[in-house]
Amino acid sequence: MTSKLKSTSLSAESTETEILCIGTELLLGNILNSNAKWISEELALLGIPHYKQTVIGDNESRLKKAILESALKCRVLITTGGLGPTQDDITIQTIAKAFNAELEERDGVWLDIKNKLSKKANIISQRNRKQAFLPRSAEIIPNPLGTAPGIIWSPKNNFTIIALPGVPSEMHAMWKQTTASWLRKNLDLHGIFVSKNLKFVGISESNLADKVSDLIELKNPTVAPYANLGEVKLRITAKGKSDKEAEKLITPVVAKIRDRTGKLFYGSNQDSLASIVLDLLKENNETIAVAESCTGGQLSAEFTSISGASNNFIGGVIAYSNKTKEDLLGIPKTLLEKYGAVSPQTVVAMAQGIQKALKSNWAIAISGVAGPEGGTKDKPVGSVHIAVTNLQSHKTSLENFGEHLSRPNIQRLSVIRSLDLIRLMLLERR
Amino acid sequence: MTSKLKSTSLSAESTETEILCIGTELLLGNILNSNAKWISEELALLGIPHYKQTVIGDNESRLKKAILESALKCRVLITTGGLGPTQDDITIQTIAKAFNAELEERDGVWLDIKNKLSKKANIISQRNRKQAFLPRSAEIIPNPLGTAPGIIWSPKNNFTIIALPGVPSEMHAMWKQTTASWLRKNLDLHGIFVSKNLKFVGISESNLADKVSDLIELKNPTVAPYANLGEVKLRITAKGKSDKEAEKLITPVVAKIRDRTGKLFYGSNQDSLASIVLDLLKENNETIAVAESCTGGQLSAEFTSISGASNNFIGGVIAYSNKTKEDLLGIPKTLLEKYGAVSPQTVVAMAQGIQKALKSNWAIAISGVAGPEGGTKDKPVGSVHIAVTNLQSHKTSLENFGEHLSRPNIQRLSVIRSLDLIRLMLLERR
Repeated sequence: MTSKLKSTSLSAESTETEILCIGTELLLGNILNSNAKWISEELALLGIPHYKQTVIGDNESRLKKAILESALKCRVLITTGGLGPTQDDITIQTIAKAFNAELEERDGVWLDIKNKLSKKANIISQRNRKQAFLPRSAEIIPNPLGTAPGIIWSPKNNFTIIALPGVPSEMHAMWKQTTASWLRKNLDLHGIFVSKNLKFVGISESNLADKVSDLIELKNPTVAPYANLGEVKLRITAKGKSDKEAEKLITPVVAKIRDRTGKLFYGSNQDSLASIVLDLLKENNETIAVAESCTGGQLSAEFTSISGASNNFIGGVIAYSNKTKEDLLGIPKTLLEKYGAVSPQTVVAMAQGIQKALKSNWAIAISGVAGPEGGTKDKPVGSVHIAVTNLQSHKTSLENFGEHLSRPNIQRLSVIRSLDLIRLMLLERR
Repeated sequence: MTSKLKSTSLSAESTETEILCIGTELLLGNILNSNAKWISEELALLGIPHYKQTVIGDNESRLKKAILESALKCRVLITTGGLGPTQDDITIQTIAKAFNAELEERDGVWLDIKNKLSKKANIISQRNRKQAFLPRSAEIIPNPLGTAPGIIWSPKNNFTIIALPGVPSEMHAMWKQTTASWLRKNLDLHGIFVSKNLKFVGISESNLADKVSDLIELKNPTVAPYANLGEVKLRITAKGKSDKEAEKLITPVVAKIRDRTGKLFYGSNQDSLASIVLDLLKENNETIAVAESCTGGQLSAEFTSISGASNNFIGGVIAYSNKTKEDLLGIPKTLLEKYGAVSPQTVVAMAQGIQKALKSNWAIAISGVAGPEGGTKDKPVGSVHIAVTNLQSHKTSLENFGEHLSRPNIQRLSVIRSLDLIRLMLLERR
């Protein structure tokens, strides 16, 4: 699956867009800037070039400066935030001041706000009347979910400012209802972007880049690598006159990459390692169970985050103490005493124990030292044993992630490696 | 516990800082800008004023322009991203070009990189050698987790650029180890900020704000509410000449808030609901086990994310299928057939089953419909049953989170409500 998106015109200047998110809570780090991410994705889908995002607090002089800077450089400035009824909401007022324009109470807006407020509360605050005052020549963006209207306003030639509220649900609704179609109609958009993500495990970003270095030099499609903890992604983006033309450019590059990377490639776009493992199990209608020690539920959570996982994932045991390993997985006390909880023998017994208890086709077991305490000379923090078993055989793996890694990272990498181990076994079996 | 932080000087210009996040993936909306949020919080804790954040793609001319613009306005520019080994990682090179400086291979850096790489892979990519080339006079920020070193470099008077990698874990470690102390030592910070977060569960942000509306009007300390999924936080920040003076301002406000909120308050600062439950269990040296259905491991993961959890959390079962509920929890088939998997009877049997199997003092069980599929008229998506049992008694709770909620949100809220239920039982028992 590829995502289709309209592309940039040849004259970038006529469509270039910037995002300006307004709110002191962003500068204090109180909230993640999910609005910038959301709008970025929407702009990419529309094929509108966008090279800069800015965050400014609720401060008039700084905000005015940022708006005027953008007005010199881009075709459209999209702002979020500062449309509320309180004193620190100053976006509309500041936009107007920046271009020496007057605000006027626009017909029907205050009535609409009063109607909306009366459905929620008995007392209507006069504060909200402020939201009806907008620049005279601005087009109003109706807000289907809240009181604050947005505006689309061109205070000068070839520059339009689109002001949206900061509440994500309201902003999304106003984008879909009004903003996107305005952009499509008023910007000079040509061509189509098609983009595809390929995902890899078991290789570093630089080693993957070495394998495809000639493709990274390509101009259309472009190929760009991104690293995550334990995983790497290649994003391939093509520009064409049509979907078909763009996809035609992508297909041979994807084929080349897959040819060079073999089983290091595990999936595309929305796939996760867990979803791919579930897909492979589905092929033969097989089930899987897990026994987790140091990952303490994270491997199970990875499977069960996927809707419909219950068709193949039947459950598991969090065996966080030796006693639990004995009681629920039937591991002999003697084995635990002889080899210890973090050992290939124990992890195989855990996998076989849960497989037997739940009569699953496959089982994964993980036991290790996630730290920061509990490391020894023989078994330092970061040593993790993994076992995967099916009805015929089993495989084990000892990972040494290193003592410097944090507990969450050791837990996360253990989950990734265990999913990759079973993925490779399922692929081999094909 | 309160965190101590140095405060802003009176001459803001001497400390003003900007954040510049570099990466085309941010402009494409592929990832949330968690680095900007994280650094913002750290700057606020240090009391360093910060009025602007910018995001730029992996594009030399735009990046150079952004760097030079900041150099005119602020004392410190903190960048993240673009320190990797691939062609599109251009931060160090562009910073150097912006100030017409040469890069030179710095002693020992390539050796250190090779050592790190040899632990992970057999083949060492020559690409990584690029990471050893840094501006001559730059101070190196060691990277304890990855290959990319950062730099602290003052290319001109009263302007320092701090370049950090984009990988969050590496950036955090380098901030804590090197960057924060450099900022503390080199910026002209006066006064002390002391900040304390109080955490609440079982009340909405606006209802909590109503309870403390008079305190929200205070100037020193300030009191600000923040909402998270299922939880609310009040951040109290005081400014004083010393830690002691600032803490003296905070103490009576905290007392007032706790007096008005009672058991709705659950903890401070780094506390989580799971850590508080573990602390309460520790008081009587008790153990807990869990049986999870629709949360599929997330409750266990919440406990085991805490180092030392194994003293009280002994394990659990992910009973994702009815068969698992029968096999591992000993729930009679007849009970499951009569009441269904999502019922108070089943969830109590699950809790009692795991408690019996693991001989724990306490047990939590969760069973519900996390969606998006699987809802019925009687049991729509978002209905979740929770049971908490100890050796004497049990409590159950039926949550109706609503069909509009996403699967991850229903799973998360189920975990929060189950932890709050046992927390209240543990408090009552005191």
